[in-house]
Amino acid sequence: MEKPNEGRARVVIENLEPELSCGRFPIKRVIGDTVEVEADVFADGHDEVEARLLWKKDGEAEWQTVRMTFLGNDRWRGTFPVDHVGPYLYTVAGSIDRFGTWRHDLEKRIAAGQDLTIPIQAGAILLEQIASSVKGKDASKLIAWAQELKAQSKDAPSAAKAAKLALTSELAETVQLYPDHLVETRYRRELGVFVDRQKAGFSAWYELFPRSWSTTPGKHGTFRDVAARLEYVSEMGFDVLYLPPIHPIGKSFRKGRNNSTEAAPGDVGSPWAIGSSEGGHTSIHPALGTMEDFQYLLKRAGQLGLEVALDIAFQCAPDHPWVTEHPEFFKKRPDGSIQYAENPPKKYQDIYPLDFESSNWKGLWDALKEVFRFWIGKGVRIFRVDNPHTKAFPFWEWVIKELKAESPDVLLLAEAFTRPRVMEQLAKLGFSQSYTYFTWRNTKDEIVEYMYQLTRTQLREYFRPNFWPNTPDILTESLQVGGPAAFKSRLVLAATLSANYGIYGPAFELGEHLPIRSGSEEYLNSEKYEIKTWDLDSPQSLRPLIAKVNEARRNNPALHGNLSLHFHSIENPMLLCYSKRVQNAGSDGGDNTVLAIVSLDPFHQQSGWVQLDLNVLGLEAAQAFEVEDLLADQRYLWHGSRNYVELRPQGIPAHLFRIRKHVRTEKDFDYYR
Amino acid sequence: MEKPNEGRARVVIENLEPELSCGRFPIKRVIGDTVEVEADVFADGHDEVEARLLWKKDGEAEWQTVRMTFLGNDRWRGTFPVDHVGPYLYTVAGSIDRFGTWRHDLEKRIAAGQDLTIPIQAGAILLEQIASSVKGKDASKLIAWAQELKAQSKDAPSAAKAAKLALTSELAETVQLYPDHLVETRYRRELGVFVDRQKAGFSAWYELFPRSWSTTPGKHGTFRDVAARLEYVSEMGFDVLYLPPIHPIGKSFRKGRNNSTEAAPGDVGSPWAIGSSEGGHTSIHPALGTMEDFQYLLKRAGQLGLEVALDIAFQCAPDHPWVTEHPEFFKKRPDGSIQYAENPPKKYQDIYPLDFESSNWKGLWDALKEVFRFWIGKGVRIFRVDNPHTKAFPFWEWVIKELKAESPDVLLLAEAFTRPRVMEQLAKLGFSQSYTYFTWRNTKDEIVEYMYQLTRTQLREYFRPNFWPNTPDILTESLQVGGPAAFKSRLVLAATLSANYGIYGPAFELGEHLPIRSGSEEYLNSEKYEIKTWDLDSPQSLRPLIAKVNEARRNNPALHGNLSLHFHSIENPMLLCYSKRVQNAGSDGGDNTVLAIVSLDPFHQQSGWVQLDLNVLGLEAAQAFEVEDLLADQRYLWHGSRNYVELRPQGIPAHLFRIRKHVRTEKDFDYYR
Repeated sequence: MEKPNEGRARVVIENLEPELSCGRFPIKRVIGDTVEVEADVFADGHDEVEARLLWKKDGEAEWQTVRMTFLGNDRWRGTFPVDHVGPYLYTVAGSIDRFGTWRHDLEKRIAAGQDLTIPIQAGAILLEQIASSVKGKDASKLIAWAQELKAQSKDAPSAAKAAKLALTSELAETVQLYPDHLVETRYRRELGVFVDRQKAGFSAWYELFPRSWSTTPGKHGTFRDVAARLEYVSEMGFDVLYLPPIHPIGKSFRKGRNNSTEAAPGDVGSPWAIGSSEGGHTSIHPALGTMEDFQYLLKRAGQLGLEVALDIAFQCAPDHPWVTEHPEFFKKRPDGSIQYAENPPKKYQDIYPLDFESSNWKGLWDALKEVFRFWIGKGVRIFRVDNPHTKAFPFWEWVIKELKAESPDVLLLAEAFTRPRVMEQLAKLGFSQSYTYFTWRNTKDEIVEYMYQLTRTQLREYFRPNFWPNTPDILTESLQVGGPAAFKSRLVLAATLSANYGIYGPAFELGEHLPIRSGSEEYLNSEKYEIKTWDLDSPQSLRPLIAKVNEARRNNPALHGNLSLHFHSIENPMLLCYSKRVQNAGSDGGDNTVLAIVSLDPFHQQSGWVQLDLNVLGLEAAQAFEVEDLLADQRYLWHGSRNYVELRPQGIPAHLFRIRKHVRTEKDFDYYR
Repeated sequence: MEKPNEGRARVVIENLEPELSCGRFPIKRVIGDTVEVEADVFADGHDEVEARLLWKKDGEAEWQTVRMTFLGNDRWRGTFPVDHVGPYLYTVAGSIDRFGTWRHDLEKRIAAGQDLTIPIQAGAILLEQIASSVKGKDASKLIAWAQELKAQSKDAPSAAKAAKLALTSELAETVQLYPDHLVETRYRRELGVFVDRQKAGFSAWYELFPRSWSTTPGKHGTFRDVAARLEYVSEMGFDVLYLPPIHPIGKSFRKGRNNSTEAAPGDVGSPWAIGSSEGGHTSIHPALGTMEDFQYLLKRAGQLGLEVALDIAFQCAPDHPWVTEHPEFFKKRPDGSIQYAENPPKKYQDIYPLDFESSNWKGLWDALKEVFRFWIGKGVRIFRVDNPHTKAFPFWEWVIKELKAESPDVLLLAEAFTRPRVMEQLAKLGFSQSYTYFTWRNTKDEIVEYMYQLTRTQLREYFRPNFWPNTPDILTESLQVGGPAAFKSRLVLAATLSANYGIYGPAFELGEHLPIRSGSEEYLNSEKYEIKTWDLDSPQSLRPLIAKVNEARRNNPALHGNLSLHFHSIENPMLLCYSKRVQNAGSDGGDNTVLAIVSLDPFHQQSGWVQLDLNVLGLEAAQAFEVEDLLADQRYLWHGSRNYVELRPQGIPAHLFRIRKHVRTEKDFDYYR
């Protein structure tokens, strides 16, 4: 084995965290976050070491440096802020802290009353060495210190005199500015962070089918119809308006109502069967309007604080233009026909999957990228990607990097309801947000365990969950049987457990709950295959509650992230109690702490004693504090960790408390008497 | 971002285990081990994948391949054997299992009664494609199958006929031999295993100071004296004879008895103060004998099944030849004198540390390597390295690789009693075995927790513990106060918890237990500074018990490794119960299972009910089984999981049971009545 270039680099750096797949993938953050980095940094022998976190925006020439803090057991921690969208890099460097070692030894020698002549001289020499690599004022300062130390050491200086000089914090601070770069150790890899805009981490999605938004029942709705009633969505407090595919819908093998294989005349078909003689993935379904109408909707949405997300479903109806223009994008069957989608024994003859093993895979990749670029060109920045797990992983890695290089503010939500490793890989490859298993996590144990995975394992670094109580494809059993209480409970859970969440409406707020048949998660008379008429003004609508939940989310920074999530004990398996908290980020500059208590039982009243972990909430044992229910506009005075709660399915089966630590006046107390 | 070379490689390989520090360090095994490798291997969509473990001896051109087994949740496992000393490589490859996918789909189509014409044709085409990359007989077989399938498909074959042909296991097995290498995915790194000879994993060390082995009390013992009484060591069943440094001992600042700073005339000094005018690290202390005597000792040891381990302590006494020959190997103080060892306020003026930051670090590295090579040239293959954690890590990585390239059978034991990360790093860099914290782990919780770290975390892949109840530097408090029962208990724990263990004798078997002062772990009248006279024939000696323990170790393969260690519940905090088991490796070809129950209380009788995890022991709930105490030559008949034990400090405070599953004859039963 060859000797290394610099065998005197005695510092070791190991177990750097966070690091995904040995640096192959960047971690994710949003603007305003800090990145916290830890590493084991140590050397042989007794010398002290210093550890430095290096970071920069990708492409910058110079690293920024921050000294890391010693945590004990050879572990060090440092943080850096990210305040621009785009890629950052970080790594760790370490070197022997010669001055720190010398200073610490000197303290011990002074305490032991040892002769200090030689040690003080050694310190002076060390300062001269450090000064030689320093320019300007600090160099002069260091040399002056060195000379003074030398002068003192000549006549056996008193411990007190030497100490005063050598141990001044000014000297230590000056030296700290000039760590030993000559024989420093760098961590073997530079690691990436991709920083997204804040919406990647905090968003409320509303999915609707524009064709159901005409005010004339049965008539095909348009973008203009949606724009005309868009306050309905914005007033509930959503900030992403997600539209299923807006492209021409295939005519051959079109599916009829309730997914029947034979469409009746006039059946509108599934928006996911993309493409006809009217165009493909860059065309608009004529019945929805024109490109101008679409851009009008984008503009109107923007005025109302809504951003439009498009659905990208990379598959083709048999009459999609690509089928004739690019037959090589598809697999052939032995009889020469194009292979339709199949999962034996099921056949989906209305859908041709794209063949990622095509000999022209490069052409296919380019074509798909151009679909994204087309809509980005029209002003769209958020895409919900349909079934990304049935397209090749290398494609996603490439296309997302390409898109983000041009448009770093693009966000992609992966609609992959599949196995854990596959979902994780898509998130690692660059998807900004991911659909999750929340939809099927109903019991206390299931929810706590799943949230542990999302917020306490490495997933927290790259997998941004987006919780959906329902989707057009998924009407869960709990919503089928649980009545309005189940809808309310699932809404509060989704919106407060996860900073990103969404609902498929108006089906959700109107309590649509009938399945096509028992045991199925498909809707009866699913909007996927027909135009629906929704009674937006129904008095039973959950719209007011949704508005309250979204308002609470917006006003409470604690709900803008997931990593502070903490479950508190509550003595009832049907009740779930959890908090989120941010320090120094409340509207008054103080903490913001939210405590949720949600009933998982849609049928019966449930009550129990919560046992709060007060230290997690920043409260003291003897303290009285106010909890203000943001959903019910009620306030309670609580004391200490043990408090009673009671929730009924008839009302709102959840408390969403903001905790106020300081009950300030007698009047405040009166409020509770 | 450039497109990859092969964008059609759809398989992903992640989370490969074992892998140390992203492949930077090899894992360790001994001859006869198998290496078990797991990885997540998966693809997009619904196609099945196949995963292959690739392995070879480093330097071989061709990989050997073994199909991995699917474990569920996208996890795959494969194993390969290692039967040569030296480096091996392994990695994982995966590809789409086209035939498996087709076959599985066909089964579902048949079950659904679908028309099979096109699917059978597709299968025939697939077989032809596979055949095109195959040579010889298998190619013809595959083509014949393809033609037959085609022929059948022409007249709408019956499901039964197609199934018979397509689903034969012979066809599947033939196809499995030819996985798709064209678009396979390789794991990003090739990982290393260093395979040592078996002694790296299973060894019993005996440390002695040759100078105390004269039969004439007070006379300086020699290698010949040791050789003359070496049966004493071999008959106890040890297989490594470890000698403290055998080099000339420094005269200036020599330490006197009990570590006094002033040596009296005739004081022999510490063997770790290496070097005098009589020579340095490649010389022999004249009082011990000549190089010929040393080689005679090596030879005699070999005849008795003992291998000699030398102590390598890289530090110099002030009169070591290097001090004048290579002054640049040492640090200078400001007054021009050489810097002695210091840990303020402590001074060690008899020791000059080597300066790994020397401008001539390359020369220093070479000189140190030559010390090892010199003794390897004399026939030594095991080294116990003194304080490796005070020498630069890059040096160890380099020198161990250099030595193993020349002499792959060299073993190095790291004597680093220091912080966890430092000890781990030395093991990663190549030390074959390591001293441990066992010395200070006394309570049940401490032992269970420490064994968990050693056998259930990544340490198991590279950190081979060597357990020492005592050393010349460490007389633990438990031995100081616990009397013979403590010595016996610590012996059994060391020898059965860890497949590598050692004692410093005869101090150990003779129960040497007086510290230099209360609160110190130094021996009173330590052998480090004086010649001792040991009464090897003392009737109180633990020699017979040690012989029994070593015999049990030798005869029971279960004790030759640590990874099967399992702690069983026992309802007494002063009793520890654990088992080790190997399957198909007993003397009769069956299992070998050892169950130890050790009292941690040297003062009182302790009893309790063990609650055995029968499945771990390979026993069934209703089964009677024999436990044979290998230390006491007693046998008991036990039934089921709950059994009673009782241990007294006056006798042997431990059971070391071999479990025999099958009680075969009536006579066997009689034995217990």
